Amino acid sequence: MGEITARCADHRTPLLYEQWYVAALSTEVSQALSEVWVLQHSLVVYRKRDGVAVALQNRCPHRSYPLSHGVRDGDSVICGYHGLTFDADGRCVRIPSQESVATRLRTRSYPIVEQRPFIWIWMGAGPPTCAPPAAPWLNNPDYADVCGVFDVPCSYIRLHENVLDLTHLPFLHRASFKTPELSKTVPQMSTDGIQVRVRLETQMQATSGPSAAGEPAHSVQVVSELCFASPAVHFATTTVADLDTPPEGRATRRTGFVHAFTPVDPTSTRYFWCVSRDSELDDLAASDRARQDFTAIFSEDVAGLSRVEAMWARERREDFREISVAADRPGLRMRQNIENLARAEAESREAAAPVRAAGETP
Amino acid sequence: MGEITARCADHRTPLLYEQWYVAALSTEVSQALSEVWVLQHSLVVYRKRDGVAVALQNRCPHRSYPLSHGVRDGDSVICGYHGLTFDADGRCVRIPSQESVATRLRTRSYPIVEQRPFIWIWMGAGPPTCAPPAAPWLNNPDYADVCGVFDVPCSYIRLHENVLDLTHLPFLHRASFKTPELSKTVPQMSTDGIQVRVRLETQMQATSGPSAAGEPAHSVQVVSELCFASPAVHFATTTVADLDTPPEGRATRRTGFVHAFTPVDPTSTRYFWCVSRDSELDDLAASDRARQDFTAIFSEDVAGLSRVEAMWARERREDFREISVAADRPGLRMRQNIENLARAEAESREAAAPVRAAGETP
Amino acid sequence: MGEITARCADHRTPLLYEQWYVAALSTEVSQALSEVWVLQHSLVVYRKRDGVAVALQNRCPHRSYPLSHGVRDGDSVICGYHGLTFDADGRCVRIPSQESVATRLRTRSYPIVEQRPFIWIWMGAGPPTCAPPAAPWLNNPDYADVCGVFDVPCSYIRLHENVLDLTHLPFLHRASFKTPELSKTVPQMSTDGIQVRVRLETQMQATSGPSAAGEPAHSVQVVSELCFASPAVHFATTTVADLDTPPEGRATRRTGFVHAFTPVDPTSTRYFWCVSRDSELDDLAASDRARQDFTAIFSEDVAGLSRVEAMWARERREDFREISVAADRPGLRMRQNIENLARAEAESREAAAPVRAAGETP
Repeated sequence: MGEITARCADHRTPLLYEQWYVAALSTEVSQALSEVWVLQHSLVVYRKRDGVAVALQNRCPHRSYPLSHGVRDGDSVICGYHGLTFDADGRCVRIPSQESVATRLRTRSYPIVEQRPFIWIWMGAGPPTCAPPAAPWLNNPDYADVCGVFDVPCSYIRLHENVLDLTHLPFLHRASFKTPELSKTVPQMSTDGIQVRVRLETQMQATSGPSAAGEPAHSVQVVSELCFASPAVHFATTTVADLDTPPEGRATRRTGFVHAFTPVDPTSTRYFWCVSRDSELDDLAASDRARQDFTAIFSEDVAGLSRVEAMWARERREDFREISVAADRPGLRMRQNIENLARAEAESREAAAPVRAAGETP
Repeated sequence: MGEITARCADHRTPLLYEQWYVAALSTEVSQALSEVWVLQHSLVVYRKRDGVAVALQNRCPHRSYPLSHGVRDGDSVICGYHGLTFDADGRCVRIPSQESVATRLRTRSYPIVEQRPFIWIWMGAGPPTCAPPAAPWLNNPDYADVCGVFDVPCSYIRLHENVLDLTHLPFLHRASFKTPELSKTVPQMSTDGIQVRVRLETQMQATSGPSAAGEPAHSVQVVSELCFASPAVHFATTTVADLDTPPEGRATRRTGFVHAFTPVDPTSTRYFWCVSRDSELDDLAASDRARQDFTAIFSEDVAGLSRVEAMWARERREDFREISVAADRPGLRMRQNIENLARAEAESREAAAPVRAAGETP
Repeated sequence: MGEITARCADHRTPLLYEQWYVAALSTEVSQALSEVWVLQHSLVVYRKRDGVAVALQNRCPHRSYPLSHGVRDGDSVICGYHGLTFDADGRCVRIPSQESVATRLRTRSYPIVEQRPFIWIWMGAGPPTCAPPAAPWLNNPDYADVCGVFDVPCSYIRLHENVLDLTHLPFLHRASFKTPELSKTVPQMSTDGIQVRVRLETQMQATSGPSAAGEPAHSVQVVSELCFASPAVHFATTTVADLDTPPEGRATRRTGFVHAFTPVDPTSTRYFWCVSRDSELDDLAASDRARQDFTAIFSEDVAGLSRVEAMWARERREDFREISVAADRPGLRMRQNIENLARAEAESREAAAPVRAAGETP
C-alpha cells in the first residue's frame, strides 16, 4: 500500500456542502410540516398544495423557533411562536404585530429536486452547479424497486468505505451470506474525477447470496460494479448469469443499488437505500421479500459500523493509527477524494465575501 | 429598530449573582433536608424547629458529600459521609474523629427571606444590598393566589423575553387563547433603572382569555401592565373592565402575576409562578380551576422555549444572527440591561480581593 | 495538617499505566469473547482451550471493529468485520482477502497473571517490572472467600481514600454498622515506599459490626490493619479477639479484605472486592450470608462516592478547595504518592522514544 500517501478524510474532515444530498424519501414528505436534519442544519420539509416538495431553514430567523412546530397557511408556514409567516420561497410575508415587513426578512429556501424514490436537496452556498446524481435503473419501467432508511450513529465516510469493499460480506454478514468467494476475488479499480469504481467477477453457487434466495443451487457468474459517485451517494449493480444454461439463451438478472448517505453531523448519518430488480416486476410478494431481506442485511452494516464509531468515540487514544490492507485501495482513494473536496470548499469559502444566512439583531 | 445598538445578553452572558432569587416555593421546604440548585450552586434547604427556612452550601467543605443526604440533629446537619456537623449558620460544630474544630471550617450560609409563597435567597458575594422584589398583591388579604413551578431546559433570558412580549399569545398559546387582538395592540414601553415596563390596552370579547373563562360573552377593556423587575422576576397585572355596564358602577377585576426565573445553569431554569386574583377569594373551586388553567398555559411556554433552546444547542451555526421586530423593543432593552449588569458584576469582582468560599487542602 | 504541603492527586492527575490491575474476576472470563475496559483501553478477554486467560487490544488495528464481536477459531480470534485473524499472542495470522500478512500487523497482547479470584493485567509500555500484588490469605486453604464487583461512577482515588479512613463507618454505613467507636480511634500511620499503612485498635461490643453478625453480645478487641498497596489495590485485615475468654485460650478470628480499583476512565472505576475468613471454611450458608452482607455494605460506599463525584461534575466551581481533617492524613499521603507516580510516568514517557501501538494508514 506504499503508493497511497495522500491525506485521507476521517472524523476531522469538515462536511461537504457543495453537493446534492438525499433529504428524504418521497414517501416521507407530505403536506404536513416535518423536520429533517442535513449537514447540521435543521430543515422544515413539506409539499405545497400542488404536491411540489419544499425545504426551508427550519429555524425562524426571529427567535429560532422550529417552523416545523408551526402551522400551514396555504403554501406558507406560520411560525408557532409569534406568527411570522413565510411563503414557500422563504420570504417573510407577514408579521402579525406590525404593518410592514422588511424585505430582507426571510428564512433560507433550498433547491429541491424530486426523483422518486428520493427528494434531493442542494446545501451549497450558491445555486446548484450540477444535476443530482442519477442511475439508469431509477424511474425506469424495466425495474421494480424497494427502499428504506436507517438512522446510523456513524460517519458517512465509514458507510462509503463499507460499500466499496465487499470483502466484509462473509464476515459482517456471516448470518445472511455464505459467500467466502467474495473475499477472494481481486477487484479492479478505476477512477473518473472524484468517482471511484470497482469491478468484481465471481463464480459461485446461486444459493449463496440474497439475489438468488429460494432458487435451486446452480453455478452462476456474478459481476458486481461499485461506484462512489459523490460524497452523497454510492451506486452499484450486480449482474448474475446462469452458467448452467447455454451461452446463447443464457438468462441474466440485474440488480441496481443506491446507497445514499446524508450526514446529519460528522458522526451520524441518514442512510437511504433503494434496491431495483429487472425481474418479477409486478410481484408484490417479491418486493416484500426483498424489502425484508435487504433491511436485515443492511441492518448488519448499521450495527457493525455503529460499533466502530463507538470505539473511536470512547477509546480516545491519540496513539492509534489505522492499518490498511490491499482491499482498502478503493476506500482510501475515496477518502482522499473527500479530503480534497473539503480543502477545495474551504479555499473557495475563504475566497468568497462573507455572506449572512440571516440578519443581525440590530 | 435602528436605535438599539447596544450589546444584548445571550447564552454567553455570565449569570448574575448580586440579586435576590426565588430558591423554592414555601410549600417545597419542610424540616426534611432537600437539595435545590441556584446559579450552578447546590444548596441544602430546610426549616429549623422554629419554622425559619435555612439555605446552606450543600457541598461539605471536607470531601464534597451533599449534606442533603445527611441527617438533622436539632437545627444542625450531620454530613452523611464522615459526620461533620454544621449548625444553621454554617459553622462546623463537630468533627467526630477529633476533639477540636478549626474556626474557619464552615459551609456557606445564604441570606434567606421568606415572603409566602416564595423563599428568596441572596447569592451575592457580600450581604444583601436591597430587599427582595415585592408586589402589592402578594400577602394581601384582598387577593387569593395559586402557584406552581416548572423545570425548564432553557435560559432564563428567553423566559423573560417571552413574558415581555404578549404578541406570542395567539400563536404559542393558540390552543388556549383566542385573542388575535393582542398581537395588534401597540405596547407602550417605559424604563426605570434596570426595570422595563410595558403597558397594553385592548378591547376584546370576554370569552377570549383565561381570566374570563366561563362567563357569557361581553365587551371588555383589558389593561396589561408588564414589568421586568429584576433578572430574577417579572411582575404583571391584568385589569379587566366590563364595558357593557355603565362607567359609574363598572366592575373591574384585577389579576396579578409573578414569574420568577431562577437560573440553575445558563440553559436551565426553575420557573416559579404565582397568579393572584381579587375576586372569588374564598372559592376553592375557582383556585383549582385557575391552577389547572395556568399550568396548562404556562406549559405551552415551557414547551415552546425548550424547542428554541434545543435549536440553539443542536444547530451550531456560527453564521446565525437573530432578526428582531418592533415588538421586541422591551425584550431587547431587558437584554441590554442584563448585559450591563453582567459587566458591572465582572468589574466589581475584579476590583475585589479574591475570596475563598471554602478552605484549601493544607 | 500543616506538615502536608505536597501536591495531592485529584481528578486532573493522569491515570497510571505501570501497574498491575485486576482486569476481571476469574469467574467472569470464559472461552467466549468478552469486552472489558481498563485505563480507557478496550480489551477482549477470553480463555484459550487450555483454560489460560488472554487479553488483547479489542480494537482491530485495521478498521477499529471490536474483536469481542468476532468469533473464536481455535485459540485465535476472527474479526467480525473483514475476517482478519489474530492468534492469542496478538499476531495477525490471516487476511482473507490477500495471500500475505505483514509481520508488523498485530493487535496488542497484554501480560496476564491469574491468581484466583482475580485476573491481573499489566498495562505498562514495557514488560512487567514486578509481580502482581499478593495477600497471604488469597489462595490459602485456611481461608474461605466471597467476592464481587461494582461499576462505580467515581474516581479510583476517591475509592482508595474511602477505604483508608474508617471514620466514615458510623455515618456512610449508619444503616449497617453501629460502631461509633471507630470514629474515635486514633489510627497509627506508617509508610513503606508508595505503600501507606494504618493500624487501629478498638474495643467494642461484638454485635456492632458485620464480622460478628448473629453472635451474642460480648466484649471484643478489633485490630484493623489497612494498606494502600498500589494504585490498583488496597489490602486490609480485621482481627477480632474475644475479651470475655481467658487470654491463654482466647479465640481470634481474622478477616482479609481485597479492594481492587481498576480505573475505566478518570471518573469511573470497576471495583472488585474479596473478603476471606479463617472460620466456617466449608459453610456455604456462611458464604452466602457474607456475600449478601458485604454487597450491601460496599453498595453504601458506591452510592456515597457516586454522589461525591456527581457533585464535582455538576457544581463546576473554580473557587472550591477541599478542607482536610486529621483523619485524612493517610489518604492525603496516598494521594501524594499517586501524584508522584504520575509525574514519574510522564517523565519516563518523555524520555522514551515514541512507540506506536498500532501501525499507520500508509
